[in-house]
Amino acid sequence: MPSANASRKSQEKPREIMDAAEDYAKERYGICSMIQSQEKPDRVLVWVKDLTVQKADEVVWVRGRVHTSRAKGKQCFLVLRQQQFNVQALVAVGDHASKQMVKFAANINKESIVDVEGVVRKVNQKIGSCTQQDVELHVQKIYVISLAEPRLPLQLDDAIRPEIEGEEEGRATVNQDTRLDNRVIDLRNVLGNILQQTSTSQAVFRLQSGICHLFRETLINKGFVEIQTPKIISAASEGGANVFTVSYFKNNAYLAQSPQLYKQMCICADFEKVFCIGPVFRAEDSNTHRHLTEFVGLDIEMAFNYHYHEVMEEIADTLVQIFKGLQERFQTEIQMVNKQFPCEPFKFLEPTLRLEYCEALAMLREAGVEMGDEDDLSTPNEKLLGRLVKEKYDTDFYILDKYPLAVRPFYTMPDPRNPKQSNSYDMFMRGEEILSGAQRIHDPQLLTERALHHGIDLEKIKAYIDSFRFGAPPHAGGGIGLERVTMLFLGLHNVRQTSMFPRDPKRLTP
Amino acid sequence: MPSANASRKSQEKPREIMDAAEDYAKERYGICSMIQSQEKPDRVLVWVKDLTVQKADEVVWVRGRVHTSRAKGKQCFLVLRQQQFNVQALVAVGDHASKQMVKFAANINKESIVDVEGVVRKVNQKIGSCTQQDVELHVQKIYVISLAEPRLPLQLDDAIRPEIEGEEEGRATVNQDTRLDNRVIDLRNVLGNILQQTSTSQAVFRLQSGICHLFRETLINKGFVEIQTPKIISAASEGGANVFTVSYFKNNAYLAQSPQLYKQMCICADFEKVFCIGPVFRAEDSNTHRHLTEFVGLDIEMAFNYHYHEVMEEIADTLVQIFKGLQERFQTEIQMVNKQFPCEPFKFLEPTLRLEYCEALAMLREAGVEMGDEDDLSTPNEKLLGRLVKEKYDTDFYILDKYPLAVRPFYTMPDPRNPKQSNSYDMFMRGEEILSGAQRIHDPQLLTERALHHGIDLEKIKAYIDSFRFGAPPHAGGGIGLERVTMLFLGLHNVRQTSMFPRDPKRLTP
Repeated sequence: MPSANASRKSQEKPREIMDAAEDYAKERYGICSMIQSQEKPDRVLVWVKDLTVQKADEVVWVRGRVHTSRAKGKQCFLVLRQQQFNVQALVAVGDHASKQMVKFAANINKESIVDVEGVVRKVNQKIGSCTQQDVELHVQKIYVISLAEPRLPLQLDDAIRPEIEGEEEGRATVNQDTRLDNRVIDLRNVLGNILQQTSTSQAVFRLQSGICHLFRETLINKGFVEIQTPKIISAASEGGANVFTVSYFKNNAYLAQSPQLYKQMCICADFEKVFCIGPVFRAEDSNTHRHLTEFVGLDIEMAFNYHYHEVMEEIADTLVQIFKGLQERFQTEIQMVNKQFPCEPFKFLEPTLRLEYCEALAMLREAGVEMGDEDDLSTPNEKLLGRLVKEKYDTDFYILDKYPLAVRPFYTMPDPRNPKQSNSYDMFMRGEEILSGAQRIHDPQLLTERALHHGIDLEKIKAYIDSFRFGAPPHAGGGIGLERVTMLFLGLHNVRQTSMFPRDPKRLTP
Repeated sequence: MPSANASRKSQEKPREIMDAAEDYAKERYGICSMIQSQEKPDRVLVWVKDLTVQKADEVVWVRGRVHTSRAKGKQCFLVLRQQQFNVQALVAVGDHASKQMVKFAANINKESIVDVEGVVRKVNQKIGSCTQQDVELHVQKIYVISLAEPRLPLQLDDAIRPEIEGEEEGRATVNQDTRLDNRVIDLRNVLGNILQQTSTSQAVFRLQSGICHLFRETLINKGFVEIQTPKIISAASEGGANVFTVSYFKNNAYLAQSPQLYKQMCICADFEKVFCIGPVFRAEDSNTHRHLTEFVGLDIEMAFNYHYHEVMEEIADTLVQIFKGLQERFQTEIQMVNKQFPCEPFKFLEPTLRLEYCEALAMLREAGVEMGDEDDLSTPNEKLLGRLVKEKYDTDFYILDKYPLAVRPFYTMPDPRNPKQSNSYDMFMRGEEILSGAQRIHDPQLLTERALHHGIDLEKIKAYIDSFRFGAPPHAGGGIGLERVTMLFLGLHNVRQTSMFPRDPKRLTP
């Protein structure tokens, strides 16, 4: 265990300093024994963000990470960090601190967690490098709660270098892999430019938590019920491509590519409106900026009365409520991310712009693209279309309705007025698809015909088709990719930035 | 495709009747062509639950399922159902309905979905068999929207037979399997006793949706951040037992047995307080009333200052907020379930009762149980203890703290005051475990020692141990089983009643 040895060694250095000589401040610093819940002291720890001039001259206890330390003669300046906040702390030889104590403080490894007792002092000149600019902490006691190893696995200089523009199709940069390999440190955002006070990674995932919250809040207010659907399934529902196989006791099973069958069963069971949030699995060997083998699906399914637009509009409105909620409640996070990754604010219309596929084709053709009526959109054409729509309608969010039947799954309801079209739609953010949805076929006979047309083995989807045999209301729905919504709302360029622990064909760790 | 034939056949019967003879009401009934979103009529559908005397003499459109139908001379009585509500509808020969129309209505297969236009009429005598007791609908038009097959796969008489008392360890009753095999119909709750108006299955899952909502609402108010953790992992974290293997491109991967490593990494990354809701997978060949191979985990992890009780109390309070919220917001659902499965209301104390393991041992020994100090609790002893605690403290919910170190996982923090104890706890509802939690070891050196003590291959948990090398705050957490909480809150007896599509060693469908 070389790493265990390394850890032991790192702890010796500050210990040596501590034990070196007679020291009047001996009791005022040191390495705490591990917190094992030995006691419940009534000590109050103050948050770094609350260290302001209102607390001037108070003695407080603070727990934080040693962000930087800098010894200077008989003084040591520490920056203590707590999430996105930090404050300057001064250990100076005097009544409280000895020479040894200053040396001890100066030698604490970066990223270690310390408990500090100190007096809050107003400063005359603002401290530009800290979030708490008007005060500093004059340290009277300092104890290490958890000592970090001396060498961090991330080279900060590498990590704050901007992403290579136009990174595409598998050319993950070294930076990104280093970040992902050391996500625990990356997420603390020691990577952000300290002077800019950015804390991108934390902000991204706090905002992502907000997306989930707004999604559910909106849908629960609209009368939806949250359901939980199984991820281990007995048969690959869409014919078996791109599906992960699981050993299930003596048999094989599969990981669900979407909760769709289960959402539809709930509709057939009269739940009327359901949603779920959960992992979906795609065994695609795609190494692009927007594909993951495991991602989080925000899924909706809803019975309607006469037209699938009832559902499509409900979904679009849900997304609009999310965008509004993010802009209202997460402005701090949006601005933090923008500092590191500049981007125009996300624009949307109310009600949401709806274009038909044939209109989009006309726009693309006018821009010089050659495409057949029943061709699917390529990624570059999607992006081009996004730019054309933005120019013409000034929105980053729109619905593309009435896809060619030929490019959609077998369970998609054909358009009764045009047999080459279907009652299906995608939704786009900044020119990239974030949702795919449709009216589903609720009639077992038509469903059987369409499955046969697609060459699907009816035996494998028997349970699915049987779900519609005992009275099924017309219904529609869709699935949203959480990581894509986060990425595109913030104008980031890779889903790996918005998946905390991403999975792709080449990455399964941490 | 014999089943497709069956479906075609079933549609012929009402068609024959319709086409039989000249009929003045011809346009007023029939089988609609499939709703393919042909049009957007401005027809308003009224909810069954809104059909009250306030609407008397109004003409309304209603969509519902044919729950029952009964022809009687020149009349046909239908019960139309919409989720848990139903109303009586009368088709009688007269100005609006012909003989043929009455016959058509009487022959619509049960569970078919129909659109009905009718006049709401106040009735003189309450209709005891319907939720809408004061009105009935005098039908003027009736169209079948989705025709059910004539024979339902569930035998109602079998299905409403009460569960066999004391069903235990794998003896799933035939009823339950029939229910689960036909979940789409079971969830509609045609199974409940019609006269009692129960709709147990829907109520159970509406309440379960509420548990998730209350869990998140409470934690977001407490400052927690929701995270998403990967389910496909590269190594089995606790040594490899009971883990499902996944084929991952050219390699093997595993399904996560818990999100714990990832929750802890978030704590090491300074998220401070996190939670997640997601599937967890256990490849245990356990066929009991409370084990599933896939269930939904409500997981919490939180940094603390000095004592893990700070976290334990936060978790217990979260559960208390859930119990309170359920009793406030879901009284209707609780009462519906209680009608079919009678049970005493769930009792809890504030603050939550905390017992130490040694106290529990003393209580059990006093009741005649022979147990060693470091023995784990068996299921029967857990239940007995639950009864003893209920008698003594009048609570169905309590914390059992300070488990023997020997029966807990390697990452559990030992109790510094008693080397045979640990800083770990379980929480119980009605005598069954619903949460297991502990202070985690945040020191890589002690973690290494404990892993070695448990005979775990250090190479396999290297990434886990490395997460703690760069400064880790003391922290604790726990994982709650959603299906168990739902089951025990409602006093049900099998997690298969509270998992919509349960997975166990013998069940992978639907």
